[in-house]
Amino acid sequence: MYLMINVEESSYGMPITGNGVAKVVDSTHPNFNKGDLIWGMTGWEEYSLIKSPEYFFKIQHTDVPLSYYTGILGMPGATAYFGFYEVCSPKKGETVFVSAASGAVGQLVGQFAKLSGCYVVGSAGSKEKVDLLKNKFGFDDAFNYKEEPDLNIALKRYFRDGIDIYFENVGGKMLDAVLLNMKLRGRIAACGMISQYNLEQPEGVHNIFCITTKQIRMEGFTVLDYYHNYPKFLETVLPKIKEGKITYIEDITEGLESAPAALIGLFSGRNVGKQVVVVAHE
Amino acid sequence: MYLMINVEESSYGMPITGNGVAKVVDSTHPNFNKGDLIWGMTGWEEYSLIKSPEYFFKIQHTDVPLSYYTGILGMPGATAYFGFYEVCSPKKGETVFVSAASGAVGQLVGQFAKLSGCYVVGSAGSKEKVDLLKNKFGFDDAFNYKEEPDLNIALKRYFRDGIDIYFENVGGKMLDAVLLNMKLRGRIAACGMISQYNLEQPEGVHNIFCITTKQIRMEGFTVLDYYHNYPKFLETVLPKIKEGKITYIEDITEGLESAPAALIGLFSGRNVGKQVVVVAHE
Repeated sequence: MYLMINVEESSYGMPITGNGVAKVVDSTHPNFNKGDLIWGMTGWEEYSLIKSPEYFFKIQHTDVPLSYYTGILGMPGATAYFGFYEVCSPKKGETVFVSAASGAVGQLVGQFAKLSGCYVVGSAGSKEKVDLLKNKFGFDDAFNYKEEPDLNIALKRYFRDGIDIYFENVGGKMLDAVLLNMKLRGRIAACGMISQYNLEQPEGVHNIFCITTKQIRMEGFTVLDYYHNYPKFLETVLPKIKEGKITYIEDITEGLESAPAALIGLFSGRNVGKQVVVVAHE
Repeated sequence: MYLMINVEESSYGMPITGNGVAKVVDSTHPNFNKGDLIWGMTGWEEYSLIKSPEYFFKIQHTDVPLSYYTGILGMPGATAYFGFYEVCSPKKGETVFVSAASGAVGQLVGQFAKLSGCYVVGSAGSKEKVDLLKNKFGFDDAFNYKEEPDLNIALKRYFRDGIDIYFENVGGKMLDAVLLNMKLRGRIAACGMISQYNLEQPEGVHNIFCITTKQIRMEGFTVLDYYHNYPKFLETVLPKIKEGKITYIEDITEGLESAPAALIGLFSGRNVGKQVVVVAHE
């Protein structure tokens, strides 16, 4: 019924997949029955044949928008949660920087950081997104990276004493500038590097030596390794959504036929919030 | 009496320091008495005034060469030990790559890897050093990086199924090639990046995105954070030296006046094994 659009699923020459919310129309699997609402990796299609049900979750709570299971209560939400809490080991009072901060993952990392008593700044690619970060998602500050001639100087403006935690979504020049501004024993959760995916030759990152000199831990991760803790995540985040303590924005497009344009839009930064496609209204 | 020469201590405009073995000639500190043999960070000088004795260790075992406390039983040895065991979390049967492998740290990492049941390959910059790695230090294989036109191809030759653990001593092009060859969930201990220290602009590393796609953990560390476990290290390594299960090579130069040339030699790879200067024979 809903499909989230994600750059990582767009491998050339492969059938395109995405995290979807769906209703079971038929099942021989004991855990899934006809009529069950589920979320997990489906295809860009109206009906999907699921051969590997390990990473599918039955939806138990329907008092939130079902599309949330493609986002805040699905893969991006769990990515933000486990990436921030498990990979970054945040402590109260630490400083956090999030790139691509208005995206589905970034907007949540920022809010988790605030809930943990951290100072958090985000970067995004338009004035509209920067306003959202500051006024809707409660980031302490935010900036438009496209308007910064020198990212190193921009970061120094917001982090006079340096960055404890960087939630990395973009790579390239931003990572280079961040490395110069990391504190001793800083942590970088390498969640994605969207600026690099469409380049023939990825950009060189020159300040990697900072990892040695500042004893930085940089760690790539996949949410798949944390799905066994999904119930704990749901238990924590669901009440916060209902109490209005966590805000979430989606960019909803109608019709499966609009999915290709929505995917292309991700690379130019057109979307605001998680890009979702409505496949069917039922 | 002995002084180890280390590139990291050669900051421009600063008094040059190095890990030294010394005898206390006078002390007002309750833990150190006249006549005690100690090791720790001293100056390039015949007599040192120690104002911060926290990182000084009293030498209890004198049945090994005292110069070993500038190396295998001192800072480089503890760096290899804690970097390999604590940062890399090795498991039996894993594959390990060590760059600058004939250096004081590298030669020990390789031997620890073998003692842990790993497959280990090292790179070095001369035929002589490669021979040492294979024939003296027990590396499974070794290669001369200067004779490899393509480091990626060289690594694929030794690691057909990829690298689990990389002990990083050089940075730059080698790191770039290693990233392409790391396995899923590989670990990189970022100990040093000697190839980058004397460059005006550090080289760009293009394959950092592998950290994300392969869920690699890359971690800089300093041995200072592990010194509280030094007694455990000594307890493990000292018997292995006495039983001949760990071999160690030093490059010993006579006289403090030879220290500058010895330091410069490090950058051209002239030394084989830990570069040590004899300041006094007593």
